[in-house]
Order: sequence, then C-alpha cells, then structure tokens
Amino acid sequence: METLLYIIEVTAILVFAYSGLVHARQSGFDLVGVLTIGFVTAFGGGTIRDVLLGNHPLYWVVHWEFLVLIGLLLPFEYLLLRSNRNISGGRVLVIIDALGLGLFTASGVGIALSMNTPVLPSAFIGVVTATFGGVVRDILCNQKPQLFLPTEPLYATCAFAGAWIYIALIKLNIAPIAAVLACIATVFLFRILAVKFDIKLRY
Amino acid sequence: METLLYIIEVTAILVFAYSGLVHARQSGFDLVGVLTIGFVTAFGGGTIRDVLLGNHPLYWVVHWEFLVLIGLLLPFEYLLLRSNRNISGGRVLVIIDALGLGLFTASGVGIALSMNTPVLPSAFIGVVTATFGGVVRDILCNQKPQLFLPTEPLYATCAFAGAWIYIALIKLNIAPIAAVLACIATVFLFRILAVKFDIKLRY
Amino acid sequence: METLLYIIEVTAILVFAYSGLVHARQSGFDLVGVLTIGFVTAFGGGTIRDVLLGNHPLYWVVHWEFLVLIGLLLPFEYLLLRSNRNISGGRVLVIIDALGLGLFTASGVGIALSMNTPVLPSAFIGVVTATFGGVVRDILCNQKPQLFLPTEPLYATCAFAGAWIYIALIKLNIAPIAAVLACIATVFLFRILAVKFDIKLRY
Repeated sequence: METLLYIIEVTAILVFAYSGLVHARQSGFDLVGVLTIGFVTAFGGGTIRDVLLGNHPLYWVVHWEFLVLIGLLLPFEYLLLRSNRNISGGRVLVIIDALGLGLFTASGVGIALSMNTPVLPSAFIGVVTATFGGVVRDILCNQKPQLFLPTEPLYATCAFAGAWIYIALIKLNIAPIAAVLACIATVFLFRILAVKFDIKLRY
Repeated sequence: METLLYIIEVTAILVFAYSGLVHARQSGFDLVGVLTIGFVTAFGGGTIRDVLLGNHPLYWVVHWEFLVLIGLLLPFEYLLLRSNRNISGGRVLVIIDALGLGLFTASGVGIALSMNTPVLPSAFIGVVTATFGGVVRDILCNQKPQLFLPTEPLYATCAFAGAWIYIALIKLNIAPIAAVLACIATVFLFRILAVKFDIKLRY
Repeated sequence: METLLYIIEVTAILVFAYSGLVHARQSGFDLVGVLTIGFVTAFGGGTIRDVLLGNHPLYWVVHWEFLVLIGLLLPFEYLLLRSNRNISGGRVLVIIDALGLGLFTASGVGIALSMNTPVLPSAFIGVVTATFGGVVRDILCNQKPQLFLPTEPLYATCAFAGAWIYIALIKLNIAPIAAVLACIATVFLFRILAVKFDIKLRY
C-alpha cells in the first residue's frame, strides 16, 4: 500500500512537472525556464504548504531524491513534449493528474492536522497544496491562473470535497491510510465526472 | 475599545475582500477564482507579515473564525457586486478601507516590534501588511499592481507615515492602544486628504 | 578580505536595485513602485532563501543597515537613471552584476549547508538566492521573467556551476573564504564569457 502511494506520488509529480513544461514551452522560455517551471509546478504546492505551516526543513530538502528523480525524468518528458504536442490533453494524463490531486490534498490536510491546525484552515491548506503549484506556474508564465478560469472543469472544488472526506474520517478515528485512499477516491471520482460531463463553475 | 478595533478589523477585511471580488470578476474568473482572490486580498498582507517574521501558526490558522466570517459574508458581497457595479468607488468603502489601512499598519508594526524587529524593518513590514494583499490580488489577476501606479492617490505613503507615528509613540512608552489609535488616525487623515485633493506621486 | 566581500555585496545589491528601478520605470510605476521594486530586486532572492530555509529573523531584519544604505543611495541611482537611460547595458554594470551573482550564490549555498541542507537542494537554493530577486521584479512588473527567456546570455546556469564548485571545495574542507572566492571567480568567468560570446540556451 505504501508502495502504491509512492508510485502515485512520483507519477503525479511527473504529470504536474509535465504541465509545467508545456506551459513554459508555450511561453517561449529557454531550457532554464522550462526546467525551473517544471520543478516549480511539481513542488510549488507542497512548498507553499510547508511555508504556511512553518514546517521546516521543506519536504524536497528532506526527500531530495524526488529532485533527482524529477531531474532525471524531465529530459525524457522534454523529448516526449517535442515529439508530440497533443499529449497534454490525453486521457492517461487526466487520470494520473486526478489521482495526484487527491493524494496531494490528503498530504496537505494530513500534515496540517498533525501540526494541530484547526479543520477549516487544514482543508484550505489541503486545496492549496494540491492546486497552487499550477497557480505559481501560470504566474511565472505571465498568464491568468488556469485554476480560476471558467473554461476548465471543476478542479479545486474536487480537492475541497476530498479534504472534508479526509478530515471527517480522521475525526472518526479511521486509520490514516484508509482516509488517504477515501480522499483520493473522492477527488478522483469528482474530477473524472467533471471532465467527462464538462461541469464548470459559472458566476 | 477592543470591540471597536475588532469591528474595524472585520469590516476592513470585508472591504479588502470586496476589492478582490471586483478585480477577480473583471478578470473573468469563475467562482473558485472570485472566492480565492477575495480571501487572498483579505488575508494576504497578514500572511506575508507572518511568513517574513516566522510567526507561526499564521493568524488565520489561530483565528479561523475570520475565515468562517468572511466565507459567510462573501456570498452577500457577491450578490451586492452583481447588483451594483459602481459601489467600489463609493465613499463608504474609501472610509472603511482607510481605517483598515491604518489598523493593519499598526498590527504589522506591533507584531514586528514584539518579535524584537528593529524599527526600520518593522515600519516596512507594517506597510507590507497593510498593502500587499492588494499586490498579490493584482498579480493573481495578471495586472500591474495598482499600488505602484501613478494614477492612484497616495496609499502606501500614508501607511508609512502612520507606521512611524506608531513606532514613535511605542518608544515613548505610550499605551499600545493609544498608539494604535494614533496610527489609524494618522493614516486615515493622510489617505482621506490624498483622495480628496487627488494627491499623487509622480517621478 | 572581509572588507572586499562587503564592498562586493553592497555594490551588487545596488546594481540589483538599479535593475529594479529600470524595470519599474519602464512599467510606468510611481515613486512607491520604483522604490519598492528596487528593494524587492535587491533583497528578494535572499528573502526567498531565508523563508525556504526557515532562517529567521531575515537578513535584512538583522542587517537593517543595508536597508538604510540602499534607501540613501536609491535617490542617486534614480537621478542617474533619469539623466542617462543607456547605462543599464553598460560594461561596469555587467561586471558588478556578475560578481554579485557569484557572491549571492555562495551565500545561498553556504547558509543552506550550515543548516544541514543536503547538497542538491543547497545548490538549488544558491541559484534561487542569486537569481529570484529578478524573477520577483519581473512578476511585479507584469512581465515574463527575463531569467527564463532565450534572448539573454547564460545567467542561472553560471550560478549553478559556481554552486557546485562551492560545494565541492567545502566538502574537501577548504577554508570557506577560499570557497567563496572560487565560487565568485567561476560564476564571474562563465557569465562574462557568456555575455562576450553571446552564449544562450535554446531548446
């Protein structure tokens, strides 16, 4: 089970990084820009979580093997990107991204709760962990954050729903691993339905 | 007196949040974007203050009742916004915003001084606390920060003046509550005069 | 030697601040904007370093004499900027900027290592310390970060090379001052060669 979560985490980080590469390339950045934005998209949400919570050292400082792993795999993603521009909308990427969205929400809420953060700010920090890597990516690319645009199916909303599922199960003394899986399942289900039926928030 | 300051704080946070709603809506964001930017504008300055000072847990983690309050009132602001687009320049908003500018300046300087920060960085942190929620708002909306544009009457300058009044009174061993009130009065006076006589900084 | 490094640090901060003034002025900002962006460009990289590492109080809080110094010298830079728009590409500025790039890389890596950060994240933090003041400058000016554009000669790459030189020498138990000088020399050499021969990263 631990291994499964580790695989989800690594593949999700890679998918987040890949979305960074796509945006950076569209913005006409050079290799420094493309790699920096790949890293920032992958690790930005978790970094904001740790900075908001005062949780030092940061997780990519402790688990710097993630930096190595992403650094080694980025060139392959980069070649993939050059050879095939249409992959970013692909079904596999949407699925992995939805799993990662759930896992990062759970990690954000979990770490926040473990630092005695009340439940409402914990839920917010969970959503920020899962989504703000992409917001920083868009700011660095000088674009409006995709997360806030009505052209995209529900995203932050799915993470918010999953955050409350996670909190409810933890408060009911369910084993954390079960709460993580329930959170991932909830976020995944909501997100896939939102994409399939093109559910969007209007105002 | 404590109650008065609390009322000023809550109404000022609401006015800051409202300016976030206005900008987010003009940027064409969806409900997630509008609410996120409302929260960020309201709590961004204080969050930057706490992160710069290493002051954990953050104030909206400790006082999460503010999140509830703003979350409950945002829908009303939102309806107000839909029904009447011209309110953002209204006199009442300018007055509350000027009071909030003074109060947040005092809170920033006060917390900085209480953590043994020297006076010059404390003054800077006071101004950042009062004004950078709006800067983050504009960055998330992919706009040039309004704070830096010569089209607006004095704003950060008023906060800077109030910060030094606060510091001077604290160093003279005046009661903190009196220093807060003097700071609010100074900032309020400067800001209202700047708006009334359209005083701007050129370069 | 300490004095030499201090002179490099102050002049480099001034050059960074100057680049902030130039960008802010081109963006049409007022005096608050120009001064704020001058400060942010000069102190932004070090601030991000300290926030990522949880290194409080921040260095410009402890060494607030830098704020005074930059605050006193900014008006002169400002007059210089008004009288002569072409100085920003000048040879002297490129040389001082290259020295500062090396010194700030060394300072970032050195502080990270002293807080028991593993070498790979330390190298990253060194590069961020040296280069992200400019990134924040460009974001506040609502521009694409210059650091990521293929129109500029190598910059972050030079800092990255110097970071590894610094780490290698420290791990070999060389005196820190020698490692700092070797880092500055490496970054300086790479950067000057990159500018002279117009070496850029493509993708």
